[in-house]
Amino acid sequence: MTATDVHAPERTPAGGQAPARAAEESTVPAGPVDTEALRRFVDGTFRELREKCRAELPLDLFEPADHLTTAEHRDRTRDQLRRIVAMGGHELGFSSRYGGGDDPGGQVSQFEMLGFGDASLMIKSGVQFGLFAGSVQALGTERHHTEVLPRALKLDLVGCFAMTESGHGSDVASLSTTATYDAATQEFVIHSPDAMAQKEYIGGAAEDAEMAVVFAQLETKGERHGVHALLVPIRRDGQALPGITLSDCGRKAGLNGVDNGRIMFDQVRVPRTALLDRYAQVAEDGTYSSLIKSANARFFTMLGALVKGRVSISGGALSQTKIALAIALRHALNRRQFGRPGTDEEVLLLDYLSHQRRLLIPLATTYALTFAQDELLQAMHEVVGAQLRGREVDTVKQRAFEAQAAGMKAASSWHATATIQTCREACGGAGYLSENRLPQLKADSDIFTTFEGDNTVLLQLVAKSLLTQYKQQFSDLDTLGMAKFATLDFVSTVAGRSPARLLVQEIIDSAPRRGDGEEELHSRAWQLQLVQYREKHVVETLAKRARRAQSKSEGRSFEALNALQDHMIMAGRAHVDRVVLEAFTAAVARCEDPGVKALLEQVCDLHALALLEAEKGWYLQHRRISPVRAKQITHAVNDALAKLRPRTEELLAGFGIPEAWLQASVLQR
Amino acid sequence: MTATDVHAPERTPAGGQAPARAAEESTVPAGPVDTEALRRFVDGTFRELREKCRAELPLDLFEPADHLTTAEHRDRTRDQLRRIVAMGGHELGFSSRYGGGDDPGGQVSQFEMLGFGDASLMIKSGVQFGLFAGSVQALGTERHHTEVLPRALKLDLVGCFAMTESGHGSDVASLSTTATYDAATQEFVIHSPDAMAQKEYIGGAAEDAEMAVVFAQLETKGERHGVHALLVPIRRDGQALPGITLSDCGRKAGLNGVDNGRIMFDQVRVPRTALLDRYAQVAEDGTYSSLIKSANARFFTMLGALVKGRVSISGGALSQTKIALAIALRHALNRRQFGRPGTDEEVLLLDYLSHQRRLLIPLATTYALTFAQDELLQAMHEVVGAQLRGREVDTVKQRAFEAQAAGMKAASSWHATATIQTCREACGGAGYLSENRLPQLKADSDIFTTFEGDNTVLLQLVAKSLLTQYKQQFSDLDTLGMAKFATLDFVSTVAGRSPARLLVQEIIDSAPRRGDGEEELHSRAWQLQLVQYREKHVVETLAKRARRAQSKSEGRSFEALNALQDHMIMAGRAHVDRVVLEAFTAAVARCEDPGVKALLEQVCDLHALALLEAEKGWYLQHRRISPVRAKQITHAVNDALAKLRPRTEELLAGFGIPEAWLQASVLQR
Repeated sequence: MTATDVHAPERTPAGGQAPARAAEESTVPAGPVDTEALRRFVDGTFRELREKCRAELPLDLFEPADHLTTAEHRDRTRDQLRRIVAMGGHELGFSSRYGGGDDPGGQVSQFEMLGFGDASLMIKSGVQFGLFAGSVQALGTERHHTEVLPRALKLDLVGCFAMTESGHGSDVASLSTTATYDAATQEFVIHSPDAMAQKEYIGGAAEDAEMAVVFAQLETKGERHGVHALLVPIRRDGQALPGITLSDCGRKAGLNGVDNGRIMFDQVRVPRTALLDRYAQVAEDGTYSSLIKSANARFFTMLGALVKGRVSISGGALSQTKIALAIALRHALNRRQFGRPGTDEEVLLLDYLSHQRRLLIPLATTYALTFAQDELLQAMHEVVGAQLRGREVDTVKQRAFEAQAAGMKAASSWHATATIQTCREACGGAGYLSENRLPQLKADSDIFTTFEGDNTVLLQLVAKSLLTQYKQQFSDLDTLGMAKFATLDFVSTVAGRSPARLLVQEIIDSAPRRGDGEEELHSRAWQLQLVQYREKHVVETLAKRARRAQSKSEGRSFEALNALQDHMIMAGRAHVDRVVLEAFTAAVARCEDPGVKALLEQVCDLHALALLEAEKGWYLQHRRISPVRAKQITHAVNDALAKLRPRTEELLAGFGIPEAWLQASVLQR
Repeated sequence: MTATDVHAPERTPAGGQAPARAAEESTVPAGPVDTEALRRFVDGTFRELREKCRAELPLDLFEPADHLTTAEHRDRTRDQLRRIVAMGGHELGFSSRYGGGDDPGGQVSQFEMLGFGDASLMIKSGVQFGLFAGSVQALGTERHHTEVLPRALKLDLVGCFAMTESGHGSDVASLSTTATYDAATQEFVIHSPDAMAQKEYIGGAAEDAEMAVVFAQLETKGERHGVHALLVPIRRDGQALPGITLSDCGRKAGLNGVDNGRIMFDQVRVPRTALLDRYAQVAEDGTYSSLIKSANARFFTMLGALVKGRVSISGGALSQTKIALAIALRHALNRRQFGRPGTDEEVLLLDYLSHQRRLLIPLATTYALTFAQDELLQAMHEVVGAQLRGREVDTVKQRAFEAQAAGMKAASSWHATATIQTCREACGGAGYLSENRLPQLKADSDIFTTFEGDNTVLLQLVAKSLLTQYKQQFSDLDTLGMAKFATLDFVSTVAGRSPARLLVQEIIDSAPRRGDGEEELHSRAWQLQLVQYREKHVVETLAKRARRAQSKSEGRSFEALNALQDHMIMAGRAHVDRVVLEAFTAAVARCEDPGVKALLEQVCDLHALALLEAEKGWYLQHRRISPVRAKQITHAVNDALAKLRPRTEELLAGFGIPEAWLQASVLQR
């Protein structure tokens, strides 16, 4: 029986929108899929741009760079950036009024494609086009757009993004750089009051940036209004401008093609118009005004305008992960070690169960995250696209998108760190050689868990957002109502309606009732319900504990909240786990190619089962699965691995990494 | 009540050998301990040598090196090695007949102390004194000792250790380099038959080594006798000798001060006496002889002579981990982020629960591994010391030591990889800067999970050794006997008698019977029994499955055994977990300083509880703990963290890292 037999088109209801078949209904491996169809499907919404990059990006972007000195690597990256900017693409995310393409999703997709090469270039371009020009676009008004964007998009003006300080990173609201308005001269005075106010780790500040978007505490008429962003020239002809002290962060673990540096301001004066004044203005006489009355809401609105960076890092992390997996899996499909008893043959690494567990589970999860990333890209395209056109964005939608971006950035970057580490180890000594790219992939991507928001902080943001939604939905419920809460549909009311929700609900609703048999393990409905249950339970109990903590903790609220910190992080994780599995499920459900669909069903099955296995402690502790069931899950994971093992090459082809981009020598042996 | 009240010497039976008190009996934090007493105790058996290193090692060994080019780093390392060799210490592990000190434990302790500095130097010294000279000492006879050791110990002869090939690493028995005896000329012909036979990743081969210990398939009189080691000159005056092709592995993730290279042999002739002939000899006429009749036993005896390397890597990994923890914890005790509600103060990173979990649990486990490492060092000192003096070593003792070394190397190196990664993330952007040492610690130690035996392979070796012991002990039991097996004392009969066993059994036996209350959680006896139970259950079920697999799998033994692979790795882990907890427990029990003892009780409590928490899925699945108990364990971990948080600085002092060795700039702010 072949794939065509099992999944003949005539058996699929019109439009390919059939409820996704549970994996056990397609146990006979569909023969090789049309890998081009798979790749196009995995490419998602912005597939055209990805194909263009595959055809056009120059091959030298994919060469290892860790043998270069810092100076050589910076030169190479600078040169590569000029060349790819000349090719076009980076400007896509900007308004067409200033030479852009009104296509933020396209811009981030291109960023993701650069993640298959030397990540220094990806980050260097992200600093210029995402952080610098992006914040001017998002926070500035026409004057700034006209002055900065056309030059920045052509790299005639190189900028940087001066937010983090030595003393404050995660807690941006407490930055200590000041921007004090002097009505007499109609200027802002930018100042670093002490060493901890020094701007720190600023990409571009060490050598290249001529202008900075500086985040500082705005003060006018003796009153503080919180953190705002201003355009401050910092360097001309390679020299720091008066009042500016620039220094170099020096060598880093990775990304040494990016010139990170430090900036100190000593009473630096810039005109009143330097304030990026989309959300708040200072009049000539120093009068402060903003349509957003709450300082807190204003702060989050400004930060929200910058969430594109998190979406980008999430995508870049996945690209780096895919390269590492491709290298390690190719190696595992080539390298043999130890004889197969009773034969003269040696065993391929990937035929070992432990090797399959180490590499194929991350492969499945990378697919899952890729589909979730496509959903996130779509949401970003919509929200940022509306902002570009000057339209109002629904606050609820905006906040949901921000939480999703925070959660996905944490999930993807931690997944990258863990997976690339495993790939290094799975390649043994070969994985340690620079010529095989894994060292640089590891070192470059390592910081993704930190920048654009520390992951532990981001997961707590996600949890706070869940708690807020929870409160809003149930604020009118009394204690009795709380008790009844379990009967409400938590996921669809509280935890956000992802584009996947409708399809997912259909899958759950249409699943046949089953017994406690092992076949249920492969039912997507059963898997989804377990993953939803965990999120629901963790958020509910968190909400209850938070309420108790607040009522009991007069004067000791830090201690009370701190005791919840791990619970919050768990809530953030549980939420992301659910969103990712739903996104994967929905993607499979809408897939129209029967072979691709059948293969992705199996990949989704492995991802879901491995997630349940990893969390079996939680499920057992909450009596949601039995000890027998926990054991069955482990067997089911092993079965799913055995099924996917022969499909490894097809799944790697689905990543769409051109052969020439994989310049790791172990592959060429 | 102070520590002195609780642990007054008069309440301690003679010799400080009282059963360790459970942690709840010393809940009142003992005031600051005598950190010098703590350090001396943690230093263990070879404390004098460690103190000597602290006093004498030059400070430049502790400077970051990742800004250097490969050539500069190699030069620096070469120079440092010459200087510290001149200071003495490396020769300790060798026979005093050749200028050594008959003190293998001392030698490995010095290696461990070098692990606080640039690890390239540690590994470069390990190649010369451990791998090269060490294998000559262990596998050679007087002729080789006299010819090589005096020169090697003074660095007048630089060597390398040519075992791994491109085609075979873990499977050493299948190496394909050949050493064919030619009786006509009384020479061995060393040859690499194909590209996969190339010696690969050989430290020293790229630039420095003049002689290699080459592992090759010995053939004489047309018969193969398996892998043997021979002394082969490879380079003179910087040039490869005729028939030898040397190349450079180039840049690596880390350890770039070590010149790893590749070696190919084209019919290279060496005299008959080049064979390191302690365990097997070839007579002038080509007759092969060995006192060890079984080829397999001979092979393992030769490899067993090299286990010192695993002990060394385990210790070196712990040193690197301690440096990383010291950097990250100092940072966490200095850095503040986010305001404490209701105050003007910001919160120290280490006051956050999630930060305590990330750093203090690894701190506790590092203590645990340090005490287990001291036990391993003692065993190594005994076994290798006996070999040095030409005495017979008890085979059972030798095999137990080898399994312990394999397990500890895997445990310590994975602990290093995970902990240093966490430390990097916990330091945020600062952790990514080379000036703060974490990037190099991460990159250098990364390969420890691979070399001297891939960790997943090593854990399977441990499991095989457990199965062998299991079979030997119970070979005479019939099926009925198997069923009764659960009543036997598995741990003391099968799983090895560590030096800690007697004390540990005393602690378990003398523990009062308790109910199911929360106080039981902190009972060391209860914790030990759970950890022992897991090992026992995992090994027993593995043995049963292995027996079933063998009986059922005619002709398909690979598939049958492969299905057990994860179970084997779990058995290896469970064994090491038990050994480590017992070693920690025994160390605390014999501690005589009441303050130190009370503090270490708490550290051991955190380590044990965190281990149970990490494995709660297993315990729940096997109905060994209840869901309520699982929840209590998490609370108990949090309580243990709260107790240890104020003791962090004392515990760091216990690592005994001189201030000047901690050259990370975040600490100096």
